[in-house]
Amino acid sequence: MNFKNVLKPIFSVIIITTLFNCQEVKEKGTQEVAKAEAIDPLPSWNDSASKEAIMSYVSDVTNTESQNFIPIADRISTFDNDGNLWSEQPAYFQLFFAIDRVKELASEHPEWQTEQPFKAALEDDMETLMKSGEHGLLQLVMASHAGSSTEEFDAIIKDWIKTAVHPTKKVGYDKLVYQPMLELLQYLRANDFKTYVVSGGGVDFMRAFVSPIYDIPAEQIIGSRIKTEFDYNDGNPKIIRTAGIDFIDDKDGKPLNIQKIIGKKPVFASGNSDGDLPMLQWTASNTHKNFMLYLHHTDVVREWAYDRDSHIGKLDKGLDQANKDGWTVIDMEKDWKVIFPFELTN
Amino acid sequence: MNFKNVLKPIFSVIIITTLFNCQEVKEKGTQEVAKAEAIDPLPSWNDSASKEAIMSYVSDVTNTESQNFIPIADRISTFDNDGNLWSEQPAYFQLFFAIDRVKELASEHPEWQTEQPFKAALEDDMETLMKSGEHGLLQLVMASHAGSSTEEFDAIIKDWIKTAVHPTKKVGYDKLVYQPMLELLQYLRANDFKTYVVSGGGVDFMRAFVSPIYDIPAEQIIGSRIKTEFDYNDGNPKIIRTAGIDFIDDKDGKPLNIQKIIGKKPVFASGNSDGDLPMLQWTASNTHKNFMLYLHHTDVVREWAYDRDSHIGKLDKGLDQANKDGWTVIDMEKDWKVIFPFELTN
Repeated sequence: MNFKNVLKPIFSVIIITTLFNCQEVKEKGTQEVAKAEAIDPLPSWNDSASKEAIMSYVSDVTNTESQNFIPIADRISTFDNDGNLWSEQPAYFQLFFAIDRVKELASEHPEWQTEQPFKAALEDDMETLMKSGEHGLLQLVMASHAGSSTEEFDAIIKDWIKTAVHPTKKVGYDKLVYQPMLELLQYLRANDFKTYVVSGGGVDFMRAFVSPIYDIPAEQIIGSRIKTEFDYNDGNPKIIRTAGIDFIDDKDGKPLNIQKIIGKKPVFASGNSDGDLPMLQWTASNTHKNFMLYLHHTDVVREWAYDRDSHIGKLDKGLDQANKDGWTVIDMEKDWKVIFPFELTN
Repeated sequence: MNFKNVLKPIFSVIIITTLFNCQEVKEKGTQEVAKAEAIDPLPSWNDSASKEAIMSYVSDVTNTESQNFIPIADRISTFDNDGNLWSEQPAYFQLFFAIDRVKELASEHPEWQTEQPFKAALEDDMETLMKSGEHGLLQLVMASHAGSSTEEFDAIIKDWIKTAVHPTKKVGYDKLVYQPMLELLQYLRANDFKTYVVSGGGVDFMRAFVSPIYDIPAEQIIGSRIKTEFDYNDGNPKIIRTAGIDFIDDKDGKPLNIQKIIGKKPVFASGNSDGDLPMLQWTASNTHKNFMLYLHHTDVVREWAYDRDSHIGKLDKGLDQANKDGWTVIDMEKDWKVIFPFELTN
């Protein structure tokens, strides 16, 4: 028996397997990548123009032979959250948190029984609450989001999300993320894009629970912020959340915050409302080949249908510019096989 | 011949090699790691207590068998820049940029020939310049750092660093980085720490050229910021730098900005002045095993020697707390074999 001849093919197989495994580990550290290459990386998307446009873009800019190749360090992608990675109807989920928090704190504030907007919050009177306008909602946010340390606030949110239930869908808010977008995030990461959340929502609210759902670390979640103060506290330092707005991460605030925090212009930006338009415009000016993606809520049965006249997630100017400039617009009803992960059957 | 018995040990070796290779690729994607393990990862450090403390900490918290093991996602390390990763004497290097920029713009501002602090800047009269105090220096910074787009400013800095020369060391400012700290950054990254710059210096000033020197991407450089505005500019959007301070990333601002931008408490923090003390205090309160590192400038021959009475990089309260709490203090003269990369002989 020729020992060498027996071992040679065995070694070849092992070397190939080794290289394959290492490549896989290098790219993602999981076995997802090989799977993604072998089978459809976006299985919850119908074979529509949107899916084709996304995959053809990614394939082009990650091809070292292409003139549109983008170095890994520049593959920055930014995603709005509310109405883009999860639902935002009948109101931003963070508002439901604020209302629940006001109810929890009500016993310490007997005056809230008669004072607006707190009275409306305590009575689940959404109409009056909305009529209190920006000033009223700001009062509600400050009463419910300030006054704790960052660590205490994190624990409060984590507790809340465990039991809070969406008023009409009757599931936890964290179940109302979009399965096709989870696949898109994973697909981009498998192709060495860095995925960021860039949302008008509160950054600490999001960080407390969306990291594991989106597989995005805290440092890649960007959002609106309340003012904070550092307190050395005799060797047990705390960062205290105080009653003031530090930054609103919406509209022009999105590209401004992207520049402040990331310091690079995205090549891929995804949103669903006019609040995301400056982020998409900024991305469209990248000298690298870029991709602007709007999610159009068109599914009145499985999710919600709204655009130009909606108070939440209004998509009007953005839709015009998308049509004019040939940006990709997802038609939720037609483009997505499933909306939420719980619809998946195994 | 028992085929199985021959192959078993061969497979074992191959499996071990495979695991080792994959681990390596996973950790760094380069061959640096194996090298770092095999030879001294901190060759420019003398075998002092500082080096021993750093290496014993890293070895402990990256050991999966240790009760002090820190998951990779939490291995956040933050480094001050001025006087910590590069020199800061006889004045912050960014001030020399501001002076050079004022000289460049002087022809458009004839009034600067007589107006302070501009007159002093134009005449290289550092004494008068320093006497103009915070207000004067702020005027200088605004005149030299505002009024351009982020892209234009980036190009201005990149141009400046190419030719600017340090007044006494007579080399480019980017040559005055500390070789032992470059090795420390690389050593931490090889052990899956994420390395951040957290500096009182301007974030856009740093990002323009320190990324390749420190091997730290723009999104991991945190600093002070000027106010900015988004201008859609008819489809050619710009972010314009305006004359106002947005955030000073010094003292309490450091832990506040770390929480805002990273959203995780560091486990390793490195600084050289009282301005870094809150960042080190914040790090010291991490429930993970943590490491606080102060660089003490003690080398009057090769660099500079200063601490409690210095106007720049004053280290007074920080030194007291380091001594009291047993933080590691680098004695630059005794602990470092070389200071700057150009001292290395190949």
